[in-house]
Amino acid sequence: MTDAATPRRRGRPSRTETEAAPATRDRILHAAREEFSERGYEKTSVRGIAKAAGVDSALVHHYFGTKEQVFEAAIEVAFAPALAAPTAVEDGPLDTVGERLTRFLLGIWENPTTRTPLLAIVRSAVNNDTAAAVFRRLVAAQLLRRVAGRLDLPDAELRAELAAAQLVGVAMLRYVIKVEPLASADVERIVERVAPVVQGHLTAP
Amino acid sequence: MTDAATPRRRGRPSRTETEAAPATRDRILHAAREEFSERGYEKTSVRGIAKAAGVDSALVHHYFGTKEQVFEAAIEVAFAPALAAPTAVEDGPLDTVGERLTRFLLGIWENPTTRTPLLAIVRSAVNNDTAAAVFRRLVAAQLLRRVAGRLDLPDAELRAELAAAQLVGVAMLRYVIKVEPLASADVERIVERVAPVVQGHLTAP
Repeated sequence: MTDAATPRRRGRPSRTETEAAPATRDRILHAAREEFSERGYEKTSVRGIAKAAGVDSALVHHYFGTKEQVFEAAIEVAFAPALAAPTAVEDGPLDTVGERLTRFLLGIWENPTTRTPLLAIVRSAVNNDTAAAVFRRLVAAQLLRRVAGRLDLPDAELRAELAAAQLVGVAMLRYVIKVEPLASADVERIVERVAPVVQGHLTAP
Repeated sequence: MTDAATPRRRGRPSRTETEAAPATRDRILHAAREEFSERGYEKTSVRGIAKAAGVDSALVHHYFGTKEQVFEAAIEVAFAPALAAPTAVEDGPLDTVGERLTRFLLGIWENPTTRTPLLAIVRSAVNNDTAAAVFRRLVAAQLLRRVAGRLDLPDAELRAELAAAQLVGVAMLRYVIKVEPLASADVERIVERVAPVVQGHLTAP
């Protein structure tokens, strides 16, 4: 297993190396997620990630490239539940898409396991332009454009973004800034008021 | 003028001291705003603010108290344009309040002079719980509750917060994360789509 701690060289990898590589890669990715979550993008270093994963920095570079690329890989994993949103959207009729999307995203924020990494991403994206760019690429390409793809309307992308804005704002005020009464309001009460707005942005004429 | 750099003592202040005090206080406040904007809440220190203002740390404590209190005073100034929103809301009929509020808040974000300090506050509030608490107090007490006070409805505060959520989300995606096409869309196009939503949250049955 320790062979995997050596960067892969040209030529056919040894059997041990091929088998161990995913485990090492996952360990680095896990460490990266923890480091970015705790320290934010700016204070996290490739060296720190390597140390937390118990490997050499060179191996982090080998598997992922630059710090920006490690971040992208880490948030892609942390953000995976949210990136499933388009599937949730596609999974039903268009006239109830607002409610499905609202329930889906509030569900991710309500669950502490998925909320923590999401919060870390949002914090990094708000504070650092490189992190914002990574977040933007990921959200735009994998989430908003796929939701927009479901709408047969000329301004589908702007619609998807304004719907997302309502949900992002609710998440900010409820889970990050924690403004009352919104922070303690029953989820169903929020769905009741927010779902029609999301629906309207997406499909109203 | 340099007398003002000495903390005020008990007893009647000298005439020079009384006259100079507002200037010194303003200088500290200005330095605090700059420091918090550049470094964020966590990395800013009372000592750093004092140094930037050219005064002793004791004087900063004398005028404002703790770092949290300096922050509160600084964001109150930086946030002053946004805190005028309730006036903008009150200044016209209730059935066009959504458009007035939307135009007013987008106007603040469109103007780089008011956007920069606002962005610094948002960054600090997202990253630090103490800063978030200060932001929450200020926004809740001075902005949302005053807007809610205009609505004669039982759930006025939740309504004001959901309307704010739509506007906060647009600001996040357009000015902070800069997702396209929203980031480059014409303001009028955004007002056209967002104002009815804000209006709906505030006054729809």
